[in-house]
Amino acid sequence: LEAGDIERVRLLADPLHPADVADLMEQVEAVDRAALAAALGDKLDADAFAEMNDYVRDDLIDALEPQQVGDLVQQLDTDDAVAIIEDLDADDQREVLRSLPADDRAAIEEALSYPEESAGRVMQRELIAVPEHWTIGQVIDFLRENPDLATDFWEIFVVDTGHHPVGTMRLSWVLRTPRKVAVADVMQREQTLIPVDMDQEEVALRFQKYALISAAVTDATGRLVGVITVDDILHIIQEEAGEDILKLSGAGDGDVNEPVFETVKVRVRWLMVNLGTAILASLVIGLFAATIEQMVALAILMPIVASLGGNAGTQTMAVAVRALATNELTESNTSRQIGKEIKVALMNGAVIAIIVGLVAGLYFANAHLGWVIAVAMVGNILVAGLAGVLVPLTLDRFDIDPAVASSVFVTMTTDVMGFFLFLGLAAATGLTPAG
Amino acid sequence: LEAGDIERVRLLADPLHPADVADLMEQVEAVDRAALAAALGDKLDADAFAEMNDYVRDDLIDALEPQQVGDLVQQLDTDDAVAIIEDLDADDQREVLRSLPADDRAAIEEALSYPEESAGRVMQRELIAVPEHWTIGQVIDFLRENPDLATDFWEIFVVDTGHHPVGTMRLSWVLRTPRKVAVADVMQREQTLIPVDMDQEEVALRFQKYALISAAVTDATGRLVGVITVDDILHIIQEEAGEDILKLSGAGDGDVNEPVFETVKVRVRWLMVNLGTAILASLVIGLFAATIEQMVALAILMPIVASLGGNAGTQTMAVAVRALATNELTESNTSRQIGKEIKVALMNGAVIAIIVGLVAGLYFANAHLGWVIAVAMVGNILVAGLAGVLVPLTLDRFDIDPAVASSVFVTMTTDVMGFFLFLGLAAATGLTPAG
Repeated sequence: LEAGDIERVRLLADPLHPADVADLMEQVEAVDRAALAAALGDKLDADAFAEMNDYVRDDLIDALEPQQVGDLVQQLDTDDAVAIIEDLDADDQREVLRSLPADDRAAIEEALSYPEESAGRVMQRELIAVPEHWTIGQVIDFLRENPDLATDFWEIFVVDTGHHPVGTMRLSWVLRTPRKVAVADVMQREQTLIPVDMDQEEVALRFQKYALISAAVTDATGRLVGVITVDDILHIIQEEAGEDILKLSGAGDGDVNEPVFETVKVRVRWLMVNLGTAILASLVIGLFAATIEQMVALAILMPIVASLGGNAGTQTMAVAVRALATNELTESNTSRQIGKEIKVALMNGAVIAIIVGLVAGLYFANAHLGWVIAVAMVGNILVAGLAGVLVPLTLDRFDIDPAVASSVFVTMTTDVMGFFLFLGLAAATGLTPAG
Repeated sequence: LEAGDIERVRLLADPLHPADVADLMEQVEAVDRAALAAALGDKLDADAFAEMNDYVRDDLIDALEPQQVGDLVQQLDTDDAVAIIEDLDADDQREVLRSLPADDRAAIEEALSYPEESAGRVMQRELIAVPEHWTIGQVIDFLRENPDLATDFWEIFVVDTGHHPVGTMRLSWVLRTPRKVAVADVMQREQTLIPVDMDQEEVALRFQKYALISAAVTDATGRLVGVITVDDILHIIQEEAGEDILKLSGAGDGDVNEPVFETVKVRVRWLMVNLGTAILASLVIGLFAATIEQMVALAILMPIVASLGGNAGTQTMAVAVRALATNELTESNTSRQIGKEIKVALMNGAVIAIIVGLVAGLYFANAHLGWVIAVAMVGNILVAGLAGVLVPLTLDRFDIDPAVASSVFVTMTTDVMGFFLFLGLAAATGLTPAG
């Protein structure tokens, strides 16, 4: 297909949605992308660029002149335009902005002035706002007579003379209301307003909680400056929820289109941290070298205590991290949650300890060894349950993202305590190969 | 506050959104919920029930008569009603259904006949469909004259005489089009149709990809049977993305409101599996008991090799699981992805191996030991990279959810191979404490 048959590529791509064109670009090998772009021609439009993976888009955009990027950007709503421009390096950004008409440029420059991942970056400025004193008929006529307005919108915002939002009307209400009724009588006065500097994750939680389709964004003085629509929120939720899984495992962005060298850099940093904690655990084992020398069964069994503790800790931690991210774990139910984890740990610990104690005691024909590993196991699973809740909670209190750092601390704790409890108990109770 | 001052509770709760009322119920201790429910009275309405966490809702509903549940359910759209009824046990379900008017009952029974987590369960049957030959004016008049129609909708579906969808109109287009224009000239003919038995995760991906606000659901014969709106999709995306993190760590549902005993059952099952793999790893260590007895440094260092391998494997696995869930990892880029992971593993492995080799070699003053651990480390990180991609891919091919089972297999592989490579290499090269 890629063998030069441009006509055929175009024919196949013709019925595709911009999102499918973007997918096609992502699936193709990096070296073939320029050729595919050339073959697609106009089909590779501004919307397809907006849908594309960041890395793939950067690749393509690097090959374009700033003027061409400017042309693409002009066809997009401000939110999509900003998403493309914010990823460019400073020089290219300046050049692209210079190529835009003054009003587009001003809009994008303002959006870029808001912090990354804030409502100001996600919102679009194209919206419909009408004064309170109009009738429904006037609104409909206004919409019919102004073809330049945003083409897709789901709500009409009602503003006062100072452009402060005072209400909102869903289009379905507008459609069902007789022309002569006043806007003020149809609109809903309670609405969820999004401050322009709110973090996008918080915005997404509001959308989800109140089942919003769009929401007005206001600046520090309460003026209506933009609108966020739910389609942008879908991307954010998907991204943020996915991010947590990747952060917990230290895989950074975890984008399949990320260049190899970027991936190495992100992951090796995390592996270094893990190396530090693993060495710490080894030092703990080192303390009991003499005990192990006398009884090699301890070396054989010790990874079981650490591994199960790590697993139990990860379970608790995953629940806590999710609950924090979705605002389900709050100050009012923290102590209840800790109490629950202690109960769960004691029950799970008991079950596992009995099995491990029996297996180890029988296999090595050493009842003393069975007791030692059983007690160490209960202890470590309890440690795991507590660390699994307390580590994310503490990080959260200090405003550190619990998803990023919890995993290291939890497994460090369960490894160190697992080896310490098991080997320490063996040494302290004078465990010998004879039992 | 809970000390009997019912008036005050009501006053405080009065301005709250149903979603906030639901949150309030969740945050309160389980024993206080009945009292709070009584105090809230009417404020605890059908919408608040629909927003509530499953476990908390079940608690409350158990205390109600089927007739009362029936009253609540009648006030809801079919999708929310189904969400409540599907969680009841069979007897209660039958009783609640019996208390409903015939048409509501039929609608809910039909919804329940679709598989769990399918489009048929998520969709609502309340929708606006108009024939193709109408004009925009007729559509608007129809909406104004029928107060019984669904109150909130975002798109109007156009159907042929057999009730098959032929097009869709966003309300913003309807509003902006003169009354005399024919529906057939305004509607968009391409639309994303959702088969009624499609899995909800797939539905969510479509919504996200094509930035949909609502979509028509069709039955096996292509007739329009319902509509799915984006607010339901927000919940699904949040749930499914969160689920993966919890599944990967074996924490089941991971709901903070889950009863203790449920939590114990879910987690202990996973810990048992982990116990099995940990014992397997111990058996591998046992093979080299004689080598360890001669040189206790091996026992001290071996967890480092296993731990870093496990970590590297988890990183790769998290990326692969996410990419599979979002359809970014497909047959066409699998081999590229595997190639990338091999490169990343070799680079990361080299960096970590050099550090570990130097540290271990110098600390134990044993160059031979340094070499052995360095080589074992590169080997295990390479094993980790391959297992991290291949395990989720293989599970996916066999239609097993990669999020559930990947973790066990990956860490089992890295533990077993880590101990085997390190201890095996030490034994094979005749490593002695003297170097």
